Amino acid sequence: MIVSDNNSGVHPKIMDKLFQANTGHVSSYGNDSFTAEAIAKIQSLFTGEPGVYFVLNGTAANVLGLSSALRAFEGCICSYRAHINVDECGAFERFTGSKIIPIAHHDGKISVEDVEACLHAIDNEHESQPKVISISQPTELGTAYSPSEIKALSDLAHAHDMYLHVDGSRLSNASVGTGKSFKEMIKDTEVDILSLGGTKNGMMYGEAIVVFNKSLDRSMKFIRKQGMHLNSKLRFVSAQFLGYLENDLWRDNATNANSLAQLICRKVLEIPGLSIAYEVQANMVFIRMPELWAKKVSDKYGVEVINGTDVRVVASFDSKVSDIEEFITDLKSLLN
Amino acid sequence: MIVSDNNSGVHPKIMDKLFQANTGHVSSYGNDSFTAEAIAKIQSLFTGEPGVYFVLNGTAANVLGLSSALRAFEGCICSYRAHINVDECGAFERFTGSKIIPIAHHDGKISVEDVEACLHAIDNEHESQPKVISISQPTELGTAYSPSEIKALSDLAHAHDMYLHVDGSRLSNASVGTGKSFKEMIKDTEVDILSLGGTKNGMMYGEAIVVFNKSLDRSMKFIRKQGMHLNSKLRFVSAQFLGYLENDLWRDNATNANSLAQLICRKVLEIPGLSIAYEVQANMVFIRMPELWAKKVSDKYGVEVINGTDVRVVASFDSKVSDIEEFITDLKSLLN
Amino acid sequence: MIVSDNNSGVHPKIMDKLFQANTGHVSSYGNDSFTAEAIAKIQSLFTGEPGVYFVLNGTAANVLGLSSALRAFEGCICSYRAHINVDECGAFERFTGSKIIPIAHHDGKISVEDVEACLHAIDNEHESQPKVISISQPTELGTAYSPSEIKALSDLAHAHDMYLHVDGSRLSNASVGTGKSFKEMIKDTEVDILSLGGTKNGMMYGEAIVVFNKSLDRSMKFIRKQGMHLNSKLRFVSAQFLGYLENDLWRDNATNANSLAQLICRKVLEIPGLSIAYEVQANMVFIRMPELWAKKVSDKYGVEVINGTDVRVVASFDSKVSDIEEFITDLKSLLN
Amino acid sequence: MIVSDNNSGVHPKIMDKLFQANTGHVSSYGNDSFTAEAIAKIQSLFTGEPGVYFVLNGTAANVLGLSSALRAFEGCICSYRAHINVDECGAFERFTGSKIIPIAHHDGKISVEDVEACLHAIDNEHESQPKVISISQPTELGTAYSPSEIKALSDLAHAHDMYLHVDGSRLSNASVGTGKSFKEMIKDTEVDILSLGGTKNGMMYGEAIVVFNKSLDRSMKFIRKQGMHLNSKLRFVSAQFLGYLENDLWRDNATNANSLAQLICRKVLEIPGLSIAYEVQANMVFIRMPELWAKKVSDKYGVEVINGTDVRVVASFDSKVSDIEEFITDLKSLLN
Repeated sequence: MIVSDNNSGVHPKIMDKLFQANTGHVSSYGNDSFTAEAIAKIQSLFTGEPGVYFVLNGTAANVLGLSSALRAFEGCICSYRAHINVDECGAFERFTGSKIIPIAHHDGKISVEDVEACLHAIDNEHESQPKVISISQPTELGTAYSPSEIKALSDLAHAHDMYLHVDGSRLSNASVGTGKSFKEMIKDTEVDILSLGGTKNGMMYGEAIVVFNKSLDRSMKFIRKQGMHLNSKLRFVSAQFLGYLENDLWRDNATNANSLAQLICRKVLEIPGLSIAYEVQANMVFIRMPELWAKKVSDKYGVEVINGTDVRVVASFDSKVSDIEEFITDLKSLLN
Repeated sequence: MIVSDNNSGVHPKIMDKLFQANTGHVSSYGNDSFTAEAIAKIQSLFTGEPGVYFVLNGTAANVLGLSSALRAFEGCICSYRAHINVDECGAFERFTGSKIIPIAHHDGKISVEDVEACLHAIDNEHESQPKVISISQPTELGTAYSPSEIKALSDLAHAHDMYLHVDGSRLSNASVGTGKSFKEMIKDTEVDILSLGGTKNGMMYGEAIVVFNKSLDRSMKFIRKQGMHLNSKLRFVSAQFLGYLENDLWRDNATNANSLAQLICRKVLEIPGLSIAYEVQANMVFIRMPELWAKKVSDKYGVEVINGTDVRVVASFDSKVSDIEEFITDLKSLLN
Repeated sequence: MIVSDNNSGVHPKIMDKLFQANTGHVSSYGNDSFTAEAIAKIQSLFTGEPGVYFVLNGTAANVLGLSSALRAFEGCICSYRAHINVDECGAFERFTGSKIIPIAHHDGKISVEDVEACLHAIDNEHESQPKVISISQPTELGTAYSPSEIKALSDLAHAHDMYLHVDGSRLSNASVGTGKSFKEMIKDTEVDILSLGGTKNGMMYGEAIVVFNKSLDRSMKFIRKQGMHLNSKLRFVSAQFLGYLENDLWRDNATNANSLAQLICRKVLEIPGLSIAYEVQANMVFIRMPELWAKKVSDKYGVEVINGTDVRVVASFDSKVSDIEEFITDLKSLLN
Repeated sequence: MIVSDNNSGVHPKIMDKLFQANTGHVSSYGNDSFTAEAIAKIQSLFTGEPGVYFVLNGTAANVLGLSSALRAFEGCICSYRAHINVDECGAFERFTGSKIIPIAHHDGKISVEDVEACLHAIDNEHESQPKVISISQPTELGTAYSPSEIKALSDLAHAHDMYLHVDGSRLSNASVGTGKSFKEMIKDTEVDILSLGGTKNGMMYGEAIVVFNKSLDRSMKFIRKQGMHLNSKLRFVSAQFLGYLENDLWRDNATNANSLAQLICRKVLEIPGLSIAYEVQANMVFIRMPELWAKKVSDKYGVEVINGTDVRVVASFDSKVSDIEEFITDLKSLLN
């Protein structure tokens, strides 16, 4: 139960919505009332009328969203640990034909200074032209940007005719972790494109590309189709989002996951030799331990290990206190 | 109810399977028992151990499957009416970098002779190298190849170190329509790669790439991931296929759709001025009528029209006799 | 001497220019005075200040020029006989990720009506979006568009927010053949992008992309570099264009080639059983003959044959009357 | 004269060869005797019969050569300073669809250990599959690998079913600098693919892809054509290589450049405050100086500066002792 939120199932309320959407024939490819309603709900989270495009998973949300902002000779600046750089088997390069320009991170976050250091390439035809900054909120290390940090990156991007993209596959967890609303984190900071996730937090499949920048919005429907992510029975993605947003189910789910991540922290710190590697601002905890121990833990649970010493555990929307206690007990006995 | 099988919902037995698969945490990305079982079930349909890779829709099944067989300087021969050529917004070209070599069709089918006429390009570096023949079974015009027609194309392909791909998004309907099993149509005819559909016939989402050629099989898992079609909660696609294959649900569904397509034919032929454009061997019926009438019908129902005169209607797994009768009555009054 | 103008060598005056440009060190990658002068010369042919980008061959001029006007989900309408469609090994698809939308031609030319028939796809996300019309001037069949025919295609393109591209690898021959200047054929007809050739007409290597549409111009230098066609010692391409344009060498060369093509026509028509397949408006002649004869001719000379009966011969800038007479004598004896 | 060898002109003996090749009509696209002879000459440098494919510049040699070894889901490991990573505007990503996996370098060279650290990704479908190691000989910092260092990387590659590529745009300089023949550096170390340059060392344009691995050789001619680098009048590239190899002109040219690079070193070390940043094993010298000075030098000469302090100067085949003395005098007065 602590290996990954990707291993979790589907929240019952979302299952219900799938049932309710199974009403016989409706128009396909998103021309249905479920989709119209889900789009409106997502727009209302942010205010304004951003473009909303449902796709089938997070990799597609990232790659197709970024594709709207990039021509092939342009590049995307991101942390070298970014999911798009290391966990998507080169989907970005293949689909966009563009280059990823990886830079250093600080506890998962990238800084204005490090981005600025890449901008010397602008207008030099020998180098890919920096055009998008992509960040993850929360980061791959479980930390979160403050709205002002995001705004600083957005300002930098816009000052250079560039765009800011946010990989929000766990945006709910960042919202709960920082106490900031989706709107405060994304709309008010002038993010251009958002990958809005739900699968890790109780949905079955599906993610939304939210396009705030109107000039990028026009091409998105074609990119989604050419990108092989326009499903015929799209209402079933839309219906899940309806369930996800109804009565803030997303928040309840993320609150449970984040609280249990905090519980993991407290319990871990009671074990001699263990520490917490990065501030825990979402539902991921990196437990720092000697390399030999980390190897043992990884072998047993199949969890990810960063830098040889930082073991990742993840609390889910459906994790329970007893899961955590069980894991901690088990961990203690493993390390003894 | 006759516009498209894409407009249909999900069969209750498949909904049940989604519920049953919602068992808490299991390994993600297909490393779960539902997926193992679904793969075995599909393999047993064909015998042998073809590679089976679940993806999220038919465009992806086609493009990613074909990608396993093509390098960018090679090309894919298909009917110019093929779904990959006209209905996927250039997904093939973007993802593979290859060329489609479109040829004429005869009631939707391509012939050995027409393919042979393309083979002069082999070894001439100025032209894309023919490497795959792709056919649809049933075709986009509702006709179906006989096993011996498929075998002739497969023999031709293999004689030139090429591959044969089948777009089987409605393969169930072709099976029922021709009275041939999946194995007789695909395995015994030595097809190399199959897109095996289910969504149009009662599933919610998901399709399977079935790779019979072992040399193509090795790269498929990487192509699926890079192709943005490896879902984290893959068990929910697998579970649908389990429902689809259990007690031959696929056959019951296709039988209903095909029978109602035949009913449409009979009723249509009673209307003066209408005829059936192509042999109806699956669940699609093309009603031939004067252009003015076709325009009227298309405007009213939003159905596809081919060549200005051939109006496509499609019966679904959940269509009922009363749906057809209602449509026919309505059609008559529209045309009067 | 009649197989292809691609087989010819380099005009002595152009060789001289290569020598004269070999002046020791100058700035690389086009930041040199030869290049500045050659760009200005080309601009003055058309008036205004179109962007001029030297590349290394005609395929690159076509593909990179078109790339400036296309996003991957868009497509390029052209004759199915177009060089970009059949003679460039899929370079277009690989580099742009876009689809070619091939249409019928009439003696090599495409018509407004045939293009219009493709435009139904506009705004339908299931199909590649028509964005560029590409024509060849002269066509692959040796015919030429009149300025008013080009203007009609340009008007059609612009009315639909599309662009017009001209493959002018033999534009000199079309100019001489129609008596129209480069400006009359291209600038006055509001062409957006031109591939301006020289290699077939006396240069060693190199072609120019001329971009009339300012909105396409900005990305061209990056596309050329990413497209692997920015040479370090670019002055040697520029110097050739200086020689090509000086005292209208291009015109003298094309005049010789075209006159000899006319001589071929006259001589051919004296041979019983032979005719001229298409109007000869440049330096290519298609000699129509029975299939058996065509096979004989092709086997002997290695010339191209279209439709089994139309044998292509090409007169070059350096062809001589005696070359033609020799060929005709030889041909007569072969066919006896 | 010290800014870049890219700024140099063409050696007179190579100019002569261009003249001599201008013999009227010959078969185009490389089916001529000049090309056959040049291929044989290059093969004899290495022994065996490697495939030899002439292209038009170094970026194309790198990208097209690498493309023969890579499918899009695979990746290329190289120094993050590699020309393919930072100086080719993303040509690699666009043409191959693959990912570059950049690693640290040590004075320009990459180590077996650093490559090994990337190999954990093998068989993990979430990551691009390491398939090629690419090194530059000499490196972008003017250092050179010993044959045993190259062999170690080649052994590592082959042990993991991978390939080794060498960017040899200045291979002549490395050969002279290390006293090792082309064969000792490349063939005997079991390199799979070589980009063999000539333009920086006296040619006008053109580079050769040399393919030692027979399994990669088959696709190369198609990749070159699709890659827009098969020129019609290819004999003029071939003729240059004939001149380049005749009487070891390449060696004389490189010897001059390398000697003058050594002269630069000696002179620079006489200037207080300056040092030589990396071992000079070819014709590039990195002069280390305080940042303020480096800025001054860069502003004046337009030379490259690495890390803010290391100013690159390059000696060419046609540089003279007086050029160096003049530069040093000028530099001294600038820094005073």
